[in-house]
Amino acid sequence: MSAISNNAGGCLYLIPNFIGTLPWEYQFPEHNKRIIRSLRYFIAEDLKACRNLLKQAEYPDISQAKIEEYNEHFFDKDISYLLQPLNDGHSVGLISESGVPVLADPGDDIVKLAHQKNIPVVPLIGASAVLLSVMSAGLNGNNFAFNGYLPVEKSEKIRKMKELEQLSFHKKQAQFFIETPYRNQKLFSILLQILQSTTLLSLACNLLNDNPFILTKTVADWKKLPIPDIHKKPCIFGILKM
Amino acid sequence: MSAISNNAGGCLYLIPNFIGTLPWEYQFPEHNKRIIRSLRYFIAEDLKACRNLLKQAEYPDISQAKIEEYNEHFFDKDISYLLQPLNDGHSVGLISESGVPVLADPGDDIVKLAHQKNIPVVPLIGASAVLLSVMSAGLNGNNFAFNGYLPVEKSEKIRKMKELEQLSFHKKQAQFFIETPYRNQKLFSILLQILQSTTLLSLACNLLNDNPFILTKTVADWKKLPIPDIHKKPCIFGILKM
Repeated sequence: MSAISNNAGGCLYLIPNFIGTLPWEYQFPEHNKRIIRSLRYFIAEDLKACRNLLKQAEYPDISQAKIEEYNEHFFDKDISYLLQPLNDGHSVGLISESGVPVLADPGDDIVKLAHQKNIPVVPLIGASAVLLSVMSAGLNGNNFAFNGYLPVEKSEKIRKMKELEQLSFHKKQAQFFIETPYRNQKLFSILLQILQSTTLLSLACNLLNDNPFILTKTVADWKKLPIPDIHKKPCIFGILKM
Repeated sequence: MSAISNNAGGCLYLIPNFIGTLPWEYQFPEHNKRIIRSLRYFIAEDLKACRNLLKQAEYPDISQAKIEEYNEHFFDKDISYLLQPLNDGHSVGLISESGVPVLADPGDDIVKLAHQKNIPVVPLIGASAVLLSVMSAGLNGNNFAFNGYLPVEKSEKIRKMKELEQLSFHKKQAQFFIETPYRNQKLFSILLQILQSTTLLSLACNLLNDNPFILTKTVADWKKLPIPDIHKKPCIFGILKM
């Protein structure tokens, strides 16, 4: 690494945040605490969630942490100042509101810039709802895609669902996606209406909360069950047409 | 969950194993130890790697653990006996040779069967090289696919690489894949030859070892660097045509 790295020792750490309500010892390796405590500079999707993570990591004095916000409300085109501390040899931690940075969250631009500047990128281990869902779905863990959010507009949404169902069949590729939580129940109803009866539909909801819910059934079998209560709960959907 | 679960209290735990050489406190939450120690029945991709994980979790008496092997050499069509202990109310742990179960590893059939039998599936947190690579690549964490292994035959391999490059462009979807480690160096050379010069190529190698290597560059920029030594090292490749 040293042959192609020109920074003076700083790294961009990708630091997972909590998902659900379970405490530290369920969610993160102990090592993450050491890294968090060693840092002074952070880029946070959400200030409050970042401070909570620092607190749980027993950060010595949170008022001394330099936290810059970076999320969908960030309009500055030049993001290079976020990595400025690295020029002075300080490491920087990137922290999402929930789960791992970048995956279904902001941060790609920052990581990309780090690579351009030959800054080492060091991902830490933690929970990703997408990863836990792929593991638990029993669809296809050797060939899968995460498609982010479905379109908001209904006809577009239906077109996309059907496209993903066909794609899953032709490529034998499990297709995962998410929805804004208050629309989950509606999305699930539409999925049951438009997907074919033999298509496998996977639902991973409320992971790392007290009441997680992970289940994969054919559309035909889902229709025989009571409708699961997924309203406003964080949820990952997966499909595979057999 | 209870409304649709008919088992007497047992779960199928999906238990991550080590990747790389870093010790427990870098790789897993403490909670995983409690779960592993509480289990008597395991399904393991590799006996030795399973026993090593049990040892690191300070499993009280490994000779008492009932470990069934399940991997590519498993030819028994009826896998239901692997979940037999659940009928008696015992939980079962599924453990890969390395990393998280199912993802780029066997286990989908077992998880699928658990869902059919309404057995709760509980994923634990640990390292997935694929996940760490998606986080660290700076390609697209909101839209990506993991395609497993590329074809072995050279012309098929080249066709697949070009297909993935085009797909990444048209769907704005980062495409990740793996190769048998002793073919990594060869694959990397072919990628540099056939991909377009502006395509981003990401390499995540030796994760959670002492010498990890994570870097994303355009093909043109990779060509200016010394060829990285990735021979026989675990590696995840990612591409995105801009």
